Amino acid sequence: MPNPSAAMLVIGDEILSGRTRDANMHFLAQELTKVGIDLKEVRVVSDDHDAIVLALNALRKTFHTVITSGGIGPTHDDITADCVAAAFGVGIDVRDDARALLQAYYDSRGTEFNEARKRMARIPDGAALIENPVSIAPGFSIENVHVMAGVPSVFQAMVASVLPTLTGGAPILSQTFRVERGEGDVAGPLAEIAKAFPDLSFGSYPYQLNGAYGSNVVVRGSDGARVDAAMTRLSEVFAV
Amino acid sequence: MPNPSAAMLVIGDEILSGRTRDANMHFLAQELTKVGIDLKEVRVVSDDHDAIVLALNALRKTFHTVITSGGIGPTHDDITADCVAAAFGVGIDVRDDARALLQAYYDSRGTEFNEARKRMARIPDGAALIENPVSIAPGFSIENVHVMAGVPSVFQAMVASVLPTLTGGAPILSQTFRVERGEGDVAGPLAEIAKAFPDLSFGSYPYQLNGAYGSNVVVRGSDGARVDAAMTRLSEVFAV
Repeated sequence: MPNPSAAMLVIGDEILSGRTRDANMHFLAQELTKVGIDLKEVRVVSDDHDAIVLALNALRKTFHTVITSGGIGPTHDDITADCVAAAFGVGIDVRDDARALLQAYYDSRGTEFNEARKRMARIPDGAALIENPVSIAPGFSIENVHVMAGVPSVFQAMVASVLPTLTGGAPILSQTFRVERGEGDVAGPLAEIAKAFPDLSFGSYPYQLNGAYGSNVVVRGSDGARVDAAMTRLSEVFAV
Repeated sequence: MPNPSAAMLVIGDEILSGRTRDANMHFLAQELTKVGIDLKEVRVVSDDHDAIVLALNALRKTFHTVITSGGIGPTHDDITADCVAAAFGVGIDVRDDARALLQAYYDSRGTEFNEARKRMARIPDGAALIENPVSIAPGFSIENVHVMAGVPSVFQAMVASVLPTLTGGAPILSQTFRVERGEGDVAGPLAEIAKAFPDLSFGSYPYQLNGAYGSNVVVRGSDGARVDAAMTRLSEVFAV
């Protein structure tokens, strides 16, 4: 049985304008791989209502799980929660439990819980809150969509809350075999080996070191014995 | 008139598995912004024929320009060129000019120009080659789609070749105003200012420094005088 699939939706003009370099995609990819969930697609869209709704509806209908990052802060360009409600066709309003969390937090800091901050308690109807131990303002889950903050420390904490609730598959094991030859020399024999191990995936990643070309061949699969067998075969074929 | 739009398609299992952190998206975002082309969407898909064709057809019909990265090397998992041909419904074969480039390069290095390396001369019918000064194997352009390598040094060189051929818009200028208050305090007044400058975009990006919260407000627009006016307004509103 194939592993469960996931997609990620990154929301934010700052990524697409090049102002900010996204860090959440790489983090999420590694975390999902560890628990045997295959990240199959990532989309990055701007802070645009229609673009967010369109992408979210496409992804949530195609993949088992969708994780979003960005656009849930207090400012006028934080429109993710409203877009998620629109995508699901449900209502959205300030919710008591989210408001209580934020009220207690700002009271304890002596900070005014103003209208802008109350926006962060707007939660689509039927969603469950995702805990935010870093800065309290919660994310939320609705059906197979998990809505998280874009700030990396908060995103990472929310991923840690949600991952144990997802159904994982067989964790993917990987081993790397280094060949001190260019990809063009590796490609032919590697294709033959890949055919002989159809249950594994083989990637080849070129590198250049001190002017010499080489290739890192990465073998990935859920059966450790098969990965070992492929590594043995690689060492036979590419023995110098 | 709005600026021309662009999308990027990143192709590669190694990004989605978390093995490699993509560097090309951030580079391209910055380059496009400099020439006034708005990067509106990025998709990352795996080395899967149907996923690549589907994403490519969606993006090329929606945006003025599409730039792809990855999957044009010599190994069995390098299937981008074939997928592009399939998406456009055109044939693909080894092409004489691309073969001649590669032949001369490998001859000069005393390297065998084998079957795997010949795969890199497979070019969809009707495409124009994109020069690769780093490792010779060319990219190609077909209609509004520009197909480039995933290796960052090669991707960057190919972007440098193609960018001058694209129709740019008004370069986007940006200035940053730093407010030593949390986003929740900035959000209300900032929304008012954003309403007063509908031709500009305002982003707010929180930071934390020595335990204190602050916000970087980024003002972006193509008219420098208007950006300056917004900065003046910000300094009036957020004067301590």
